[in-house]
Amino acid sequence: MIIHLKEDISKSRAEQAARETQSILFHNGMCYVLVTGSSVQELPSAVAEVTDRFFPMKSDIQLASKSYINDTREVKIGSVAIGGGTGNTIVIAGPCSVESEEQIRQSAQFMKSMNITSLRGGCFKPRTSPYSFQGLGIEGLQLLSKMRDEFGFSIVSEVRDATHVEDVIEHADVIQIGAKSMYDHGILKACAKTDKTVLIKRGFGTTLQEFVQAAEFVLSGGNPNVILCERGIRTFETKTRFTLDLCGVAWLKEHTNLPIVLDPSHALGYRYGIEDLSKACVAMGIDGLLIEVHPDPSVAKSDAAQQLYHDQFEALLKAIKPVAQAVGKQII
Amino acid sequence: MIIHLKEDISKSRAEQAARETQSILFHNGMCYVLVTGSSVQELPSAVAEVTDRFFPMKSDIQLASKSYINDTREVKIGSVAIGGGTGNTIVIAGPCSVESEEQIRQSAQFMKSMNITSLRGGCFKPRTSPYSFQGLGIEGLQLLSKMRDEFGFSIVSEVRDATHVEDVIEHADVIQIGAKSMYDHGILKACAKTDKTVLIKRGFGTTLQEFVQAAEFVLSGGNPNVILCERGIRTFETKTRFTLDLCGVAWLKEHTNLPIVLDPSHALGYRYGIEDLSKACVAMGIDGLLIEVHPDPSVAKSDAAQQLYHDQFEALLKAIKPVAQAVGKQII
Amino acid sequence: MIIHLKEDISKSRAEQAARETQSILFHNGMCYVLVTGSSVQELPSAVAEVTDRFFPMKSDIQLASKSYINDTREVKIGSVAIGGGTGNTIVIAGPCSVESEEQIRQSAQFMKSMNITSLRGGCFKPRTSPYSFQGLGIEGLQLLSKMRDEFGFSIVSEVRDATHVEDVIEHADVIQIGAKSMYDHGILKACAKTDKTVLIKRGFGTTLQEFVQAAEFVLSGGNPNVILCERGIRTFETKTRFTLDLCGVAWLKEHTNLPIVLDPSHALGYRYGIEDLSKACVAMGIDGLLIEVHPDPSVAKSDAAQQLYHDQFEALLKAIKPVAQAVGKQII
Amino acid sequence: MIIHLKEDISKSRAEQAARETQSILFHNGMCYVLVTGSSVQELPSAVAEVTDRFFPMKSDIQLASKSYINDTREVKIGSVAIGGGTGNTIVIAGPCSVESEEQIRQSAQFMKSMNITSLRGGCFKPRTSPYSFQGLGIEGLQLLSKMRDEFGFSIVSEVRDATHVEDVIEHADVIQIGAKSMYDHGILKACAKTDKTVLIKRGFGTTLQEFVQAAEFVLSGGNPNVILCERGIRTFETKTRFTLDLCGVAWLKEHTNLPIVLDPSHALGYRYGIEDLSKACVAMGIDGLLIEVHPDPSVAKSDAAQQLYHDQFEALLKAIKPVAQAVGKQII
Repeated sequence: MIIHLKEDISKSRAEQAARETQSILFHNGMCYVLVTGSSVQELPSAVAEVTDRFFPMKSDIQLASKSYINDTREVKIGSVAIGGGTGNTIVIAGPCSVESEEQIRQSAQFMKSMNITSLRGGCFKPRTSPYSFQGLGIEGLQLLSKMRDEFGFSIVSEVRDATHVEDVIEHADVIQIGAKSMYDHGILKACAKTDKTVLIKRGFGTTLQEFVQAAEFVLSGGNPNVILCERGIRTFETKTRFTLDLCGVAWLKEHTNLPIVLDPSHALGYRYGIEDLSKACVAMGIDGLLIEVHPDPSVAKSDAAQQLYHDQFEALLKAIKPVAQAVGKQII
Repeated sequence: MIIHLKEDISKSRAEQAARETQSILFHNGMCYVLVTGSSVQELPSAVAEVTDRFFPMKSDIQLASKSYINDTREVKIGSVAIGGGTGNTIVIAGPCSVESEEQIRQSAQFMKSMNITSLRGGCFKPRTSPYSFQGLGIEGLQLLSKMRDEFGFSIVSEVRDATHVEDVIEHADVIQIGAKSMYDHGILKACAKTDKTVLIKRGFGTTLQEFVQAAEFVLSGGNPNVILCERGIRTFETKTRFTLDLCGVAWLKEHTNLPIVLDPSHALGYRYGIEDLSKACVAMGIDGLLIEVHPDPSVAKSDAAQQLYHDQFEALLKAIKPVAQAVGKQII
Repeated sequence: MIIHLKEDISKSRAEQAARETQSILFHNGMCYVLVTGSSVQELPSAVAEVTDRFFPMKSDIQLASKSYINDTREVKIGSVAIGGGTGNTIVIAGPCSVESEEQIRQSAQFMKSMNITSLRGGCFKPRTSPYSFQGLGIEGLQLLSKMRDEFGFSIVSEVRDATHVEDVIEHADVIQIGAKSMYDHGILKACAKTDKTVLIKRGFGTTLQEFVQAAEFVLSGGNPNVILCERGIRTFETKTRFTLDLCGVAWLKEHTNLPIVLDPSHALGYRYGIEDLSKACVAMGIDGLLIEVHPDPSVAKSDAAQQLYHDQFEALLKAIKPVAQAVGKQII
Repeated sequence: MIIHLKEDISKSRAEQAARETQSILFHNGMCYVLVTGSSVQELPSAVAEVTDRFFPMKSDIQLASKSYINDTREVKIGSVAIGGGTGNTIVIAGPCSVESEEQIRQSAQFMKSMNITSLRGGCFKPRTSPYSFQGLGIEGLQLLSKMRDEFGFSIVSEVRDATHVEDVIEHADVIQIGAKSMYDHGILKACAKTDKTVLIKRGFGTTLQEFVQAAEFVLSGGNPNVILCERGIRTFETKTRFTLDLCGVAWLKEHTNLPIVLDPSHALGYRYGIEDLSKACVAMGIDGLLIEVHPDPSVAKSDAAQQLYHDQFEALLKAIKPVAQAVGKQII
């Protein structure tokens, strides 16, 4: 149950109410909010007198539910807003990994020329083998910051584990929580304490319920700026790297109030169909795309097969714009 | 390996060549064609002198491969051609099951008013429980034939098992092989002997390789009129009925020469997202959509949750047309 | 709901009751039985006076449910009974495919020397490629019959599709319905009309609910001699051919009244772990094992990687006997 | 490639060799070891003169591979050794979560009376909902330490994220890395620096390749004390919580040199079949079992459905002993 306390309730009174109801407490900018487990279906009498409104919920998808807020929340990626009434479908693009200043500058220059406003690049790579390239770490974050300063991008970068979450929060505009890290309480709790935008990727073995519940960790910590990112789930089919779950996206659009960004690059794992899949994603009316693009994919240190060449990305941008228009959206 | 024999080779000589190479033999309208297992990589000397051209293949996806025919084949659904250079995306629609003359006539009248040219309806329902509605059988096929006669539709109907495959071949214009029947040699071989169009649905536990190999049974029997239909695979996610595999569709478009029709209704299993998913499918540039629509879904005898109301279908049609246009296709 | 009619009710009266309740009707040897859909929870008044006992059921797993018969049914494989109070774990073994008289005779002689009583061999192979060995067909069945006559085996052989189901029923003692055919109404209905034992393999994409419902088709046709066979499901893991679902077996043992046979050969797809997996299966206390063994796997025409050499099978038999004993069962 | 340097090579010379070959470096107690990516198939000339032996490897499963050490490593759980030539199958048992001193003491007393030597209990619970019980944290670890002091158990407890990995390393004898945390570099690297035993659970969406590669992070950091734990993967089947992958266990036994512990409790998710599954696991000849047992499961704060009652656990122990004996193992 979500409980909105009366606006004039003091912090200490709110904390007392939280203790009495074993709730999570945060302030939403207007009032204190308590969230209990979803099994609570009747307003606890202990908090009746301090309560303004309350929302019994069917599952532990609570703050993210359309039953609570019957609209898509507006969230910012740098200076660009998505969700809400914006009609924006943002394209976030860049290389899988930041590999060197030269490489990321080439990417940045190209993205600038394409009018892309948000640059992505991984610095702490969640590789499954210790013998692969592990990313440039903090040095990579500094390179991304430099690109922001020079070109005016907002920066999207991934946190791999809790040991460096503060570094990513400091340097990035959007903290990306990767598919392998999205259950990580250390990361989720740190992201709950900032007000920077958090993009949570669905784990490849993660149910929709668990996916949205990960967002609840951030939302119930008081950070409302959460974006969901579907990037493919693991199925029996191995001709493609993963299986992009657009049925799941339909479910998320119907049941949750968070903006949705899709990542066709990781889903397919090959360059050949990224344009077609991007058109499909945009036609769903979603809020953004995450596309991997590399100045020279043939020498990329990670995900070489799926990163687009610059001319392929240019073609993709050109191809998705009329689709966005056809569904009442604009690419930004 | 696919081997085109010289055009003037006699049937008996071709049969001899097939025996000598343990090949499957058929006539493609121009010449006799032998197909061996794909492990054969060098032209068998026994057939060298009767051979015109030959194609070593990498897997048992042979006749359906883009390595053999580097284009999408043109196939007819009634009077409408899809694939090839047609640019057509056909909408095949109708109820899950034919339930009564009244019901199918209501469907037919509505579809006619929507300018739909191809009516679907199941008569032999592959239900997983013996205690559910099993379909009207041959009586249903006769009702569909009646609708064709009255309204001019082409008819798409499903064969459930080999015991009635001849009945479906007789009454339908397109023989649909369902997800649960697509490994059925009895059905595949009967469909190989006709020249009617065969629409093969991917089993929900079927790999892309196996899916296209099912088409090989029909193609290698001499029937080139095969359409592939993706309708969702079974994954760990159960909030939606199945998971529509658009990464798989990207793979099929890249590697096979068969037209592709998508079925978002069975994939999602719920009405709410069918329109969004249909837009996504159309944006992929595919050749057709299969949509379940019922005059009154609330009383439908099967798949009640996923069949659209008439007004929802009308809205869907309106919504997909600009998407088709945006990707250079027209809805038909 | 399952309804036992009074024992003295006539056939025509029973048929009337079936019509009035839209039930399936069969005679169980003692009385007529009606089975309605499981949504019927109260005894229909129309049949109250002819009813002896009735069983409201929670799902369309009805006749196979422990809520109906709270025990494992006893079923015969040739002269050997399994299930019930027998304590038997039968080993059914033989090659994947019958390839020639010489090959099957070698198998038969070896199996005889191992005291195996039930010989398996496929004649109609449900291959996914038209360009692979498709089995000897009816000729294979005749060879198996010959082995039965010479050596006294019971014969287990697979039906692939409805076109030859009568042939398999005629020649085999146990009709095996394969993983790719288990939804086939044509096969299931034919098997419902015989009283021969039917072994139904779970499809690799089939839920436990659907699997047991396939058995309901046979049971509700009046044939109580049904065995369930788990043989591995398709998951994201591809280092092994399939994933043997022993959690599913625990569920089947808890909820259904049918004997259970396990097939580790198809699950793993490789020789190396078949012995270990067989020990695991036997330790579950199941009713039988299906093991693929070939006189010379290196030249086998199908499933070459998973068929055991004769000495490996001998070692397996020796290894599973003490395990069976440890769980109160005997290998037969 | 794994490269053993000559035993008399100095640390600084070894570090130079590591830099020259972009290798990971550790000392295995005998000599310095370099590990490069597996694409390196020929000994780099730069290190030829300092190399004693080298092992080209087929994949990034290197230190854990049977191609490197053709035996199962011996690893200690407190005073009990498993793997190697020990023939031990250890039973690690205890509640899902440490809930209170009273509860964990009841568990400890019971486990002592059953001669269990290793007590498990979770303190940092990786819950998917923020609104569920999150564990006692450090207080729970202190309670477990108290039980060790009083009863002499070795303690197995789980680390959830990198923020408290040092606490778990300090208090537990075996650091359990949970299914949701096994890609966590922060945890894996911290575990690589200790010499305490690390039990890595396979993620429910994790391939065998990735699973063993997680062990490579620990092994290549110089900690050889790693145990693999299979606990069920996520499949389309939802009647059971997960699907225990014993085919995968057969693969691990064949290809890796690490001891294997199985967790049937999490796999099945229900009490009813834990005994049967435990018998199956033991019959595979594995090195240990992890079983959830609670003094009163009906009031458990997590995983209530799958934790055994004390009498059920006693029955389980009694049942698995003869199975262990039948496969040449002893339960400890």
